[in-house]
Amino acid sequence: MIPIELKKSFEDIVGAHNYDDSKAGRLVYSYDATPQFQSLPDAVIAPNNTEEVAAIVKLCNEYKIPIVPRGSGTNLCAGTCPTEGGIVLLFKHLNQVLEIDEENLTATVEPGVITLDFIHQVEERGLFYPPDPSSMKISTIGGNINENSGGLRGLKYGVTRDYVLGLEIVLANGDVIKTGGKLAKDVAGYDLTRLFVGSEGTLGIITNAILKLIPMPESKMTMLALYQDLEAAAKSVSTIIANKIIPTTLEFLDQPTLKVVEDFAKIGLPTDVKAVLLIEQDGPIDIVKRDMLKMAAICEREHAVSVKVADSEKEADDLRTARRSALSALARLKPTTILEDATVPRSEIAKMVVATNEIAKKYNLTVCTFGHAGDGNLHPTCLTDVRNHEEIERVEKAFEEIFIKAIELGGTITGEHGVGVMKAPYLELKVGKEGIAAMQAIKSSLDPNNILNPGKVFAKDSRKRVVITT
Amino acid sequence: MIPIELKKSFEDIVGAHNYDDSKAGRLVYSYDATPQFQSLPDAVIAPNNTEEVAAIVKLCNEYKIPIVPRGSGTNLCAGTCPTEGGIVLLFKHLNQVLEIDEENLTATVEPGVITLDFIHQVEERGLFYPPDPSSMKISTIGGNINENSGGLRGLKYGVTRDYVLGLEIVLANGDVIKTGGKLAKDVAGYDLTRLFVGSEGTLGIITNAILKLIPMPESKMTMLALYQDLEAAAKSVSTIIANKIIPTTLEFLDQPTLKVVEDFAKIGLPTDVKAVLLIEQDGPIDIVKRDMLKMAAICEREHAVSVKVADSEKEADDLRTARRSALSALARLKPTTILEDATVPRSEIAKMVVATNEIAKKYNLTVCTFGHAGDGNLHPTCLTDVRNHEEIERVEKAFEEIFIKAIELGGTITGEHGVGVMKAPYLELKVGKEGIAAMQAIKSSLDPNNILNPGKVFAKDSRKRVVITT
Repeated sequence: MIPIELKKSFEDIVGAHNYDDSKAGRLVYSYDATPQFQSLPDAVIAPNNTEEVAAIVKLCNEYKIPIVPRGSGTNLCAGTCPTEGGIVLLFKHLNQVLEIDEENLTATVEPGVITLDFIHQVEERGLFYPPDPSSMKISTIGGNINENSGGLRGLKYGVTRDYVLGLEIVLANGDVIKTGGKLAKDVAGYDLTRLFVGSEGTLGIITNAILKLIPMPESKMTMLALYQDLEAAAKSVSTIIANKIIPTTLEFLDQPTLKVVEDFAKIGLPTDVKAVLLIEQDGPIDIVKRDMLKMAAICEREHAVSVKVADSEKEADDLRTARRSALSALARLKPTTILEDATVPRSEIAKMVVATNEIAKKYNLTVCTFGHAGDGNLHPTCLTDVRNHEEIERVEKAFEEIFIKAIELGGTITGEHGVGVMKAPYLELKVGKEGIAAMQAIKSSLDPNNILNPGKVFAKDSRKRVVITT
Repeated sequence: MIPIELKKSFEDIVGAHNYDDSKAGRLVYSYDATPQFQSLPDAVIAPNNTEEVAAIVKLCNEYKIPIVPRGSGTNLCAGTCPTEGGIVLLFKHLNQVLEIDEENLTATVEPGVITLDFIHQVEERGLFYPPDPSSMKISTIGGNINENSGGLRGLKYGVTRDYVLGLEIVLANGDVIKTGGKLAKDVAGYDLTRLFVGSEGTLGIITNAILKLIPMPESKMTMLALYQDLEAAAKSVSTIIANKIIPTTLEFLDQPTLKVVEDFAKIGLPTDVKAVLLIEQDGPIDIVKRDMLKMAAICEREHAVSVKVADSEKEADDLRTARRSALSALARLKPTTILEDATVPRSEIAKMVVATNEIAKKYNLTVCTFGHAGDGNLHPTCLTDVRNHEEIERVEKAFEEIFIKAIELGGTITGEHGVGVMKAPYLELKVGKEGIAAMQAIKSSLDPNNILNPGKVFAKDSRKRVVITT
């Protein structure tokens, strides 16, 4: 509960119409895209500018009230679920692309800008912003920065972190700092820019970002390689890269995923094969054509049963859209969809896919696997029903085994979804007790009252997935 | 002074032959490449492995003894000068390339590996490690990571930070943590990897690194564009990039630099022009040729008096080598060479060059300017004599004005050299009091006893440059 005098102060800061503590208003922001996490905030506040954010944070720090910064809440780690109540901070008034600087190849944006809108604005100038999380139609740049979002183009172009040059951040004490700038190089002190990218709103509130743009690739081609053997598909991935070709996209879909995606998208995807690779390359047309020929030859050598280049941009776009719709398509099948993102060195993908299937079989679960194979970033997705407690227990055990296997193969518990609440109990698997202690030391140093998105990243208890809290 | 019982403990850890507290041994490590900083350490220790590093750090933490990790000491910010005494930690026994993994395009290295040796090993496999600081013949990878070193290829390929995927770090409390991995994506907790890159040995001791490699570009071409007008050269730089061409290298040398470099290298550089751009592009040969033609046309349009492509790899190599020798060449002219690295958005290079010249004139100083123009990373270099106190005072004032101007233009006080002792008094100009407070909070949280490279990054007093301490 927000004390009445504090409510008054918040309303004075943002205007009464930007403060909502109605039951309905709170309910809307009590969950995000993560299945089965729900918790009511005490209020929802939509500040108009950085100064208002700073004033809100100062008050929250004084009164020790949790703040959960939230873009569109498309994350899959319960990163924006207000598990400890407090305030959900919305960025709907901070949603402008302030500048696209063609000379320095930078853009300055507010955190509430929708990712795809931004990408379109940039592309109109012949420029390119590569990070393209599957949720980009809805997700915000601020959310992408807080989660260090990846996407389909990560293999060649990297992730959100690689495109953030500078930030304006409101710290827990209300201080406003600016990091980086329109600078290709800057080593003035610690790299706070990259520390804050991916810190899930637990270290500060990002209110402005300078992003790096690159020239738009001149052309793009898309290819589909079909396999009757999962391992052959995985082998193709590492062989392509060992042959020193870095394609833009190297996506993997297994047969169960393929079937539901085709059923959803109806674009004529083959559903009688065990696995598919969706391969894209961009760049100067001659080089793209050459790379496509080389990759096609590699896929055939690795026993692809068919390799086909998309005939038109429409066909290519359909394929990409179908791939991006995998989660939505899978989500239609069962009441609860749990999508994970265990990630391994790309040389280990075949082993990881095989292990995932074995684990699914062992626990008698439906697990579909797709993902960014070129990055070693797989999305084993379990179709289940949270009301079936016995099955959920098996799901829990299966994913724990999947994470342990990923770590054993030199991988990580999350490649691009973040830790949030969902992965917090597993963080120690990857970074060890000592790593967690170091991260907690940093957290405490910047947010001693633990008001910034509390309960995220660091596990409070052994509670794992799929618990309903209302 | 190291207490006698502690000396015994150190010798037990590393072996007596790896512990040196002789006057001569200490003198060798009392300075680095930074002019006019000198301070004797109490001892020099060369551990054999991570466990020994951890044991040393634990003892130092207990006894509150400063540790200065040191590669080859080629940094220019007094980053490895043991200004507060204590121990200089050498990595001469930790100097192996442990693995080059062609399937995952990674290398695993110890910190003491010489940068150029590593680059050669990588290139033998047809792979490419782009960070190429001018000191790469001598510098170590560990030093590069601690300083987040840049280089000539930074414009297209980024800096050291962009190639560090994982680290093994000994923390101040002796804990050994591992961050990242052979992973294209990893968002398991805070990005400690990037926080430690460029932290100048003040947050932990790096004992192992996993580096990202990329395929070797297929071909490379080199071009020299000559100008009778500094601003025309600077304008060419931003016009090339605004035309959506990102060359590998876009180096700038002004006439005074050109003259001394030619005098040093004797490769027939023109010395009758006001400025030169050294431009390189790499990639598939047809694309490189096309880009070179486009860039040549832009340079001519921007009033270059001559544009010439190097005829042979030898000629190109001579040009690159000459550019890399700029500091050594300049250093021959006067007893003291102070090389700075004020960095601005690339659109502001012309203004920065003009301002630098005006400031030099105002203070009646010899300042030569060269640097990575494509990155906006300039190296105004003052040729002076530290014994001339009156002139040094003018140097001090001039550089302060240069830094203020860089900040005014949206730039930074250091693009690639680091803060160390040299730039510490200026850090506030860039990051503000609040930014320093945030960085200090992180430092204190990870190194509460301030044993890791104390006196660096954060200014202890208002002392600025060029003070001899023995």
